[in-house]
This record gives sequence, structure tokens and C-alpha cells, in this order.
Amino acid sequence: MEATVLYGARDVRFEDVPAPAILDATDAIIRLPFTCICGSDLWPYRGIQPVPGPVPMGHEYCGFVEEVGRSFKSVKPGQFVIGSFFASDNTCPHCRHGYQTSCQQKTPVLGGQAPRMRVPLADGTLVATRDVPQDDLIPSMLALSDVMGTGWFAAEAANVKPGATVAVVGDGAVGLLGVLSATQMGAERIIAMSRHESRQQLAREFGATDIVTERGEEGVARIMELTRGVGADSVLECVGTQEAMQQAVQSTRPGGSVGYVGVPHGVTLDGADLFFRHVRVFGGPAPVRRYLPDLIGLVFNAQINPGRVFDLTLPLAQVAEGYRAMDERRAIKTLLRP
Amino acid sequence: MEATVLYGARDVRFEDVPAPAILDATDAIIRLPFTCICGSDLWPYRGIQPVPGPVPMGHEYCGFVEEVGRSFKSVKPGQFVIGSFFASDNTCPHCRHGYQTSCQQKTPVLGGQAPRMRVPLADGTLVATRDVPQDDLIPSMLALSDVMGTGWFAAEAANVKPGATVAVVGDGAVGLLGVLSATQMGAERIIAMSRHESRQQLAREFGATDIVTERGEEGVARIMELTRGVGADSVLECVGTQEAMQQAVQSTRPGGSVGYVGVPHGVTLDGADLFFRHVRVFGGPAPVRRYLPDLIGLVFNAQINPGRVFDLTLPLAQVAEGYRAMDERRAIKTLLRP
Repeated sequence: MEATVLYGARDVRFEDVPAPAILDATDAIIRLPFTCICGSDLWPYRGIQPVPGPVPMGHEYCGFVEEVGRSFKSVKPGQFVIGSFFASDNTCPHCRHGYQTSCQQKTPVLGGQAPRMRVPLADGTLVATRDVPQDDLIPSMLALSDVMGTGWFAAEAANVKPGATVAVVGDGAVGLLGVLSATQMGAERIIAMSRHESRQQLAREFGATDIVTERGEEGVARIMELTRGVGADSVLECVGTQEAMQQAVQSTRPGGSVGYVGVPHGVTLDGADLFFRHVRVFGGPAPVRRYLPDLIGLVFNAQINPGRVFDLTLPLAQVAEGYRAMDERRAIKTLLRP
Repeated sequence: MEATVLYGARDVRFEDVPAPAILDATDAIIRLPFTCICGSDLWPYRGIQPVPGPVPMGHEYCGFVEEVGRSFKSVKPGQFVIGSFFASDNTCPHCRHGYQTSCQQKTPVLGGQAPRMRVPLADGTLVATRDVPQDDLIPSMLALSDVMGTGWFAAEAANVKPGATVAVVGDGAVGLLGVLSATQMGAERIIAMSRHESRQQLAREFGATDIVTERGEEGVARIMELTRGVGADSVLECVGTQEAMQQAVQSTRPGGSVGYVGVPHGVTLDGADLFFRHVRVFGGPAPVRRYLPDLIGLVFNAQINPGRVFDLTLPLAQVAEGYRAMDERRAIKTLLRP
């Protein structure tokens, strides 16, 4: 089988690898009708996160169960399933509390940029859809595996309530789906921070009411202007850099919340600054497993269409070009067809 | 009039100062039947916070209105009033949102370790009691001005809910009143971290179910042991040091919250650590003004007795000894009688 392996900064290869096989009784093998590249894959691709050796890439997935380990209870071969980027048992205290990405047994899922993959702890991790989705819904189902759930968590962590004023820092797929999530949660005003026309357009389609093109201090000043000097109730930080976090914290009203889902790279928060600003911060790897049942329903009912973030489709063999397009911001998110 | 002035580290003087006078139309002058020393007064007293010049000390107060400025509406001479350590207009967007300590006009209140003091923005800041409290209730009313409201905010910021498991870092007056607040909010289990017998005893009186004497990593390990490896739902950080904050963050379960009210001194939070722990943090100067009406009611109804934190009473003229006793941890909190 040919699959995607990252060897080092900007060195993505599509090459022969052993076909995935059941290693543990709790594994499942699934066949992937589509797969994709995540914004977080760009951290190691850009060399910002070290690559210790060849890494099988891809942690977003949905598809058909082909084979399951012995101790399987909930999922059967032939079913269409979606899982989270972290495998979880869904029975430990953290899972039952709704934080499956802090599962006491959590295991990263790898190797999804391939025609087939192995999912560990699959009974706890995978959610089967009632029906097999039509082909045109599959990109939206695929988006639920990470970016849509992550945008949703950003909005939840930022405490978005009906009528709220929300600002979104970051116009990648997660930021855009954070806009969509805030819309679903009833936000009245959603300010998307973006300087790219195609992303601005999608943000508006997803419910953004205002676009701010300024960044850093100027971006904060613009948010303050738009909110009459008060600040936003909820700010979604969907980047993971110090600059983005500062922008988020400084755009939040006293008593308001920052929800952050960009994996923090060198981000530190000054205790005294947060204290005197009265800003709540909460984030982490999105507990996608918790949201999957509801989000699958929203996709089937056509209430959300998160697959709209895929603006480039390539054959899987051209995965390296998919990375380049996202790295150069020519594409928001690349869909790959095995 | 003689009042308390801090000249530098460990240099507290009780000396002649000009009597307070109405400077602005929004000022009030109040007479203080009791006053007290705050744990946060120890930061400059210990030289950890620089003292730029002689500073009139004391920001906790309750007492009788003697004189009011021209533009007064709500409070009349003769009334018994309590205010917060920050004056606020109670009309700006932040005040209306419940964060009066982030008031757009906020002003620190100074000079309360004295027989009389001036309160700025007094219409927005002071809350009059329906009746004049009996003498024995006055220490509890005085505690509402800061430490009780601060403990309450710590519990609220840490999202304490009925049935919750709560840990409290810090056994000063605020930590102890955090225990009392968590009890009032229906926490089922309250773990107080303290190694001082008299404080442990008061913590138990206020509702603590467990006492942990260990600190740092050992303290965290003990909390984990007591919560079967899960961590606490809510942790109140009532100190303000890096060690205390780390202890709080590490004792919290994924999806749980740290409420922090110790003024942070050199505290930084690592974004990636918080992210992968799934810990929410929120804190700041407690919006005491918001809580005052309810807390005054609880004191009148004898539902809470926060004045129990005063374990040393001295004549105001001996204020320097009051500081020493708290600095050496001989006293939890010193009550001063002008």
C-alpha cells in the first residue's frame, strides 16, 4: 500500500508502507474514501515541530470498517464510521466527563493520509453513522473528525452564548469552522480576523458579520472600536502562536473568555496580565468524540456544511502538492482522493 | 488624625496625616468602627512589591457615612456602608456586566487603616445596610469588603457547583473564606491545603472535609490520591506565587477550573501545558461590589460568619505589631480598633 510519510521539514513522500493490520484486540481497520491534510500537519512540515524520524501522516478520517479486533462490541464491518484524532476508551473518568482527548488511555491516531488505516481503541473512538452518507456529504463528515469539532470546542471553550459578540483569530479551516460554530450557538455578532479574500468570503458564508484585516495591536484596536471600547464576550484563538494569543486576550472584555485550540507553540500567559484583564482562558485538544453524534446529525440534516473548507481536491498520490498549497496559503484545506 | 503609612519594607508607621476631606462631588467620608490588615498588604510590607514613597495603607472598610459630596444619590450621612477595595461607578459596561473591579473609572481605595477615610465614586462603590449591624457583626461585615468577596470570587471563578470536589491552595484569610464559599455553593468535598493547626481547624469549621499538609509535587500527588487519580473539579488558588499556581493547575482534572485571586507575583502560565491538561483558568480582583448585597444578607441571617478569620485584635495605634504578627504567621488576620 502507498501512504504519506513525513521525513523532515518540507519532505513529504508518498511511498510503499506495510498495509495496516490488527495489532490489538481493540483495533479496527478502515478504508478511507477521502482523506485530508490538517493545518496542524504544517507545524512539523514547516520544521517548527521536530520530526524525530519518518512519521506516517494523517489523523483525520472517516470511512468503512473492513476488519475489527476480537474484543469488539459497538462497530461492525461495513459500517461507515468517524473517529477523533486521539483514540480514547470512552469509559475512563475523563471520557465520561466529556474530555475524551484527555482519556487515561489516549493514543494518537496516525497514518490517515492513506487508502486504509488502523484505529486503536476503536470501540471507544469510532462513531458509526445510521446510514452510509452520500458521496457529497463525505467531505463534511471527514471535517467532523478534527477541524469542525475543534472549531466547535473553541466556541464552547470561549463560552459563546446566544446574543454574544464573538471574535475569531485565525482564518484557517478551524477558525472558519469556529465562525460556523459560533453561528450555530446563536452569536449575534461574529468578527472574523482575516486578510485573504476567499477566506473572508467563506467566513461570511458561515455567519461572520464583520471582517477585520488588521493584526496585532491594530487588530485589537479595531475590535475595540467595533465593540465601543468594551471588547468581545468570547474570542476564539485558532492559531497557536504568542501573537495570536495576545491578540485574543487583549480583544476580550473583562469577564469574557478566550477559547484556544491552536496547538500552542511557545505561548506563555502572564498571570498578572490575565488577572487585571479578568479574562478566562480555556482550551486544549478538542473532545471531538463527545461532539460526533450531534455533529453527524447536523451534517445529515444539512444544518452545517463544514466540508466547504476543502477548496482543493487532489489525488492522494499528489499529497506533497497538497502540503505545498496549504503552506503557501493557496489552499485553505486539501482533500485527497485515494 | 493619626493613620497608617508604609514607608518601605517592614517600615509601617502610625502618624499624623491630614484628616480626609471631600475632594470630588462623588466622594464620601466614612468613620470606621473597625479596620484591618489584608494579606495583600504584606506584598509591599515584605518588599516584594516596591513602595514608591509613603503610602496610606488600608483598603478594607465599613462604617458610618459622615459627609458626602454634592452629587450624591444613594447613600446618606448616618448610614452604615460597606465598599470594595476598588471604587467603581457601577454604571459603565464592565460594571453592568458584573466586573466592577474592571470599571472604566476604577480607582484604588486607600487609607482605610485609620479612624476615617475618603471613598471616591462613593455612589457606585458603597452599599448601605438596611439596619445598622450589632457590634459583634461588624467584623464579618468588614470581611465582606475584600477577603470574603475574594474567596467567593475564587469559588465562582473555579466554577464550584453542587456536589463538586474542590481543592483550596492557600490557608490565609482568603483561602479559608474560599472554603466557606465553596461550602455555601454546595461542594461535596473540600480539600484544604494547610500545615498550620489553627488554620486547619478554622478550615474544618468552614466546611473543609479533608486537610492536605503536603506542598508542591507532594501536595499534588496527595490530591490525586484523594481523588483516585482524577483531580479536583475546581481549585482555588489563593496565594499568587508560581508554586501555588502550578500546584493548582496540576491538581485540576481535565475540563476542571482554577479560580485564582492571589495577586500574581511573577506567575507565568505555559500555554502548551494548560492546553494538554485541559484546565480552565480565570481570576482577577474580585468584583466585590456585585456580591455585597447578597453577602450582607448572609451575614445578617447568620448563614456565614467570615469575621472568624480575625484571630488577633489590636488598638489601631499598634498597627505595626499587627503587620508583624501576620508576616510571621502568628495571626491569620488582624482586626484594628481605632
